[in-house]
Amino acid sequence: MKDEFAFIRSIQPDRHHQPTVVAGIGDDAALYDGEDGWHEIATVDTLAEDIHFSRKTMTPYQTGHRALAVNISDIAAMGGRPVFYLVSVSVPKAGTWREEELQEMYRGMSDLAAKYEMDLIGGDTNATYDKLVVSVTVIGRVEKGVKLLRTNARPGDTVFVTGPVGSSAAGLQLLLDEGLEAEKENKRAQAHQTPMPQVQAGRIIAGSGLRTALNDISDGLASEAHEIANASGVAMELEWALIPHELDGEERQKEWALFGGEDFQLIGCAGENDTEKLRQLFEAEGLKLYPIGTVTEGTGVWLTDGKERTRLDKGGYNHFT
Amino acid sequence: MKDEFAFIRSIQPDRHHQPTVVAGIGDDAALYDGEDGWHEIATVDTLAEDIHFSRKTMTPYQTGHRALAVNISDIAAMGGRPVFYLVSVSVPKAGTWREEELQEMYRGMSDLAAKYEMDLIGGDTNATYDKLVVSVTVIGRVEKGVKLLRTNARPGDTVFVTGPVGSSAAGLQLLLDEGLEAEKENKRAQAHQTPMPQVQAGRIIAGSGLRTALNDISDGLASEAHEIANASGVAMELEWALIPHELDGEERQKEWALFGGEDFQLIGCAGENDTEKLRQLFEAEGLKLYPIGTVTEGTGVWLTDGKERTRLDKGGYNHFT
Repeated sequence: MKDEFAFIRSIQPDRHHQPTVVAGIGDDAALYDGEDGWHEIATVDTLAEDIHFSRKTMTPYQTGHRALAVNISDIAAMGGRPVFYLVSVSVPKAGTWREEELQEMYRGMSDLAAKYEMDLIGGDTNATYDKLVVSVTVIGRVEKGVKLLRTNARPGDTVFVTGPVGSSAAGLQLLLDEGLEAEKENKRAQAHQTPMPQVQAGRIIAGSGLRTALNDISDGLASEAHEIANASGVAMELEWALIPHELDGEERQKEWALFGGEDFQLIGCAGENDTEKLRQLFEAEGLKLYPIGTVTEGTGVWLTDGKERTRLDKGGYNHFT
Repeated sequence: MKDEFAFIRSIQPDRHHQPTVVAGIGDDAALYDGEDGWHEIATVDTLAEDIHFSRKTMTPYQTGHRALAVNISDIAAMGGRPVFYLVSVSVPKAGTWREEELQEMYRGMSDLAAKYEMDLIGGDTNATYDKLVVSVTVIGRVEKGVKLLRTNARPGDTVFVTGPVGSSAAGLQLLLDEGLEAEKENKRAQAHQTPMPQVQAGRIIAGSGLRTALNDISDGLASEAHEIANASGVAMELEWALIPHELDGEERQKEWALFGGEDFQLIGCAGENDTEKLRQLFEAEGLKLYPIGTVTEGTGVWLTDGKERTRLDKGGYNHFT
């Protein structure tokens, strides 16, 4: 597919039949009216073997963890609490996955689910041709009125992230270099294999009542910054010195931090004073919030490093600026 | 996988964290508390190319129709109204599906969705290795208190179906024999390519307030009868002469009608008088209900054809009885 975003626009419905839809396609997850006082949130993500994960770098347990974490992260980006999950797994006919390995994958999900008191409520088990495909649906809840949408950024806002970025990409490289077994206790390897979604951070922001645009960083900081900037019709100025990472001394630190993705930290935009209020709320719960730039009028995402100002594309630098 | 049902039991949680779960794994779809006065219903099903469908027998449009219909049918079997759907599609890197074909697939879904005023509210687009995999999640609603569960059958009940069975299997054979283009207007081919879920039938049963066990016939009449019988701890006696089908003169009529599946009719059990009440409610809306047997004490599903009484296995006859 040439352009996933153009394709998604082409299949996006131009109106909703149901008046209960609050936000459909085009954000981290869908919002619709739920129980009294609550919106329901629904999201689905699929991991395919040798596309999104490899048995060379992740155990079945870790694959399960990640398949669920990806979706919980989308709920976190809406400020919600994950509640239920459904799993559809397509198992290769070739027999490359043993039943014990599949059970390990489900255990990776249920251990993570237990942290949030989530329940597995459904799914199906199917065959596929030659690679495992696992599709997870997560249903969550957020208080009515909370809409941490991508369209919420305004010129003058501060851009923030909830934690270090790039560790997952660095961990993947390490695992590719050194293999699955060598790096059990390594923090970077863990960032790739068992990333933790930022539900608590999302809940603090939801509870604050402050206007905030929020995204989870699944496709890379630059890409998610673009999504917010495009959806809100604004530009962003990011400062390299402010972006938190644990990659000092690494030649590829900028590439990993800006374009690596899959850390499942959150990126957001809120008014300057509101961001400071959020930082204090985070601190009170032992969490950190890192201002990394500002929202301006215009288009595009820009990075200042010392004196150099560069336009960031979604997936890399654009040197024609 | 040796035994899908044993595997599902092995990954099934032994308790729920959330008190709002009404029915989790083990029925057509999950039930949980929703908006005031309503339960939410969630279900997910995945179709994999060359496992569940083939481009030789279904167009992309029909594949989309079927991928959504499978899930709507699960909602129908809970007596619910389908409301939302999310689509996760994994597209072969090999480029075997053109973007226009993918759009056709989504159009097949949205045309069917429009009949029920359902909205596409989310999903994702991914790559996969070499075969298309499409996973659809459907969220529906049913009035609180309605639980058309598999466990509801009681000895003395009548077993019924909502329409003819076996046409989809017969249609598949026709398409395999004669190819995709030859059979556009053929009713059997349509039964395979664009099966219609029985939402209206499920809604009548839900509205009746009568105790009913209900399943959709996705894996074959015998298989679904077994699921109800096992879940309810009862046996079933079916009568071949009563089973509705449109396969007269066909050598394989019994095989198709009993084990073919994918017709998306409903099979249910209700008290004898209640079944007659349901039949009248159906008739009032221009639908039919066909009694096909009775529920008894014991185990197993049995078929009487003339004087011969045979034990039916899930996927075929058992000749050792």
